[in-house]
Amino acid sequence: MRIALLGGTGDIGEGLALRLARDTDHEILIGSRDPEKARDAVAGYEDELAERDAEADIKGFGNEMAADRADVVIVSVPPYYVGDTVEAVADSLDSDTVLVTPAVGMQGDEDGLHYHPPSAGSVTELVEQRAPDGVSVVGAFHNLAADALANLDNELDLDTLVVADDDAAADTVLTIANEIVGLRALEAGPLANAAEVESVTPLVINIAKYNDDMHDVGVKWI
Amino acid sequence: MRIALLGGTGDIGEGLALRLARDTDHEILIGSRDPEKARDAVAGYEDELAERDAEADIKGFGNEMAADRADVVIVSVPPYYVGDTVEAVADSLDSDTVLVTPAVGMQGDEDGLHYHPPSAGSVTELVEQRAPDGVSVVGAFHNLAADALANLDNELDLDTLVVADDDAAADTVLTIANEIVGLRALEAGPLANAAEVESVTPLVINIAKYNDDMHDVGVKWI
Repeated sequence: MRIALLGGTGDIGEGLALRLARDTDHEILIGSRDPEKARDAVAGYEDELAERDAEADIKGFGNEMAADRADVVIVSVPPYYVGDTVEAVADSLDSDTVLVTPAVGMQGDEDGLHYHPPSAGSVTELVEQRAPDGVSVVGAFHNLAADALANLDNELDLDTLVVADDDAAADTVLTIANEIVGLRALEAGPLANAAEVESVTPLVINIAKYNDDMHDVGVKWI
Repeated sequence: MRIALLGGTGDIGEGLALRLARDTDHEILIGSRDPEKARDAVAGYEDELAERDAEADIKGFGNEMAADRADVVIVSVPPYYVGDTVEAVADSLDSDTVLVTPAVGMQGDEDGLHYHPPSAGSVTELVEQRAPDGVSVVGAFHNLAADALANLDNELDLDTLVVADDDAAADTVLTIANEIVGLRALEAGPLANAAEVESVTPLVINIAKYNDDMHDVGVKWI
């Protein structure tokens, strides 16, 4: 399967790219608004994977080209760019595309981070509104610390939650997420349940802030 | 220390009463609007604890009397009764009282449960608004499944999050929560961070609904 990571040059995209490339047999397509930046990121990822003797099938493209070639498109850009990014690649998405969103709207103050969803109710539902009709939208990979994910020396033992209205699309993402070593994907129901999933992201950041030795904390549902 | 559980005759109150009585040396005061109901519940708890050879110091009272005698008052009533219950016992609370709220506002539909906070922002902040001036309010014990807690044969391995504006009050509740065997209490910051903590409760219920063998699921932050 071909998996595109739009905005795959930083933050959560970097970690997902490295781990999907190392742990799965999928072809990973790094997308960026600037294709040159995507290819530079890929060169860095290839070096890092080669150091660990990991074979990786990973290439860099502009976002539209990456989306066009992919079966699964993960929109790993900051939350305020998510809607525009989805619209920018709309012509590259079709009813066979599974569109995955890990972004969360947050606002910070002196107390910590707070969940701040868009008027759609959640970023996940915003993506559903902005995606072309017929494209299956899935929320996943929300509550993962970017640094913990991008450091391949760090062995994961974490859960991620999947929300989707389309069962087949959910299954596709559950399968991919479970292929990442140390990650367990669980279902949290339809897209209407996305807000509660997204709001765990500011919470883990607050827990990291207020407890010693819990930097990059994640979550297990047990 | 004396710990009152207002509404300690059912749901989360039952589990907290049994575990605090079994695992700590504190005196447990079960409160109910009807003192007779509280005493009946205590008789049941005593039987259950005796079956496990656990010594327990546990008594039943009306809510006001329980609150009056206690150093720590846990308001374990359903969310829509929380504000009125706090006001009903207001004369029994003073600046030495730590008032603890585990309640969460939720609404259900066919998809699952959704976080539905009061206009105060969270039930925890509602309690802060309704409590007499000078009473320290702490949010804790939110994301625990009542059945899992009340079944003493079930060995816990769970976390609970504590929010408070007052550090001494937070420390009191962290200490008590950590005395429950298998429960780890972590800090999540000031009361302003309560909404993200509370919203995990509908999420664990949704996870239980959508995944096999995850009935009464809880959470570990790792």
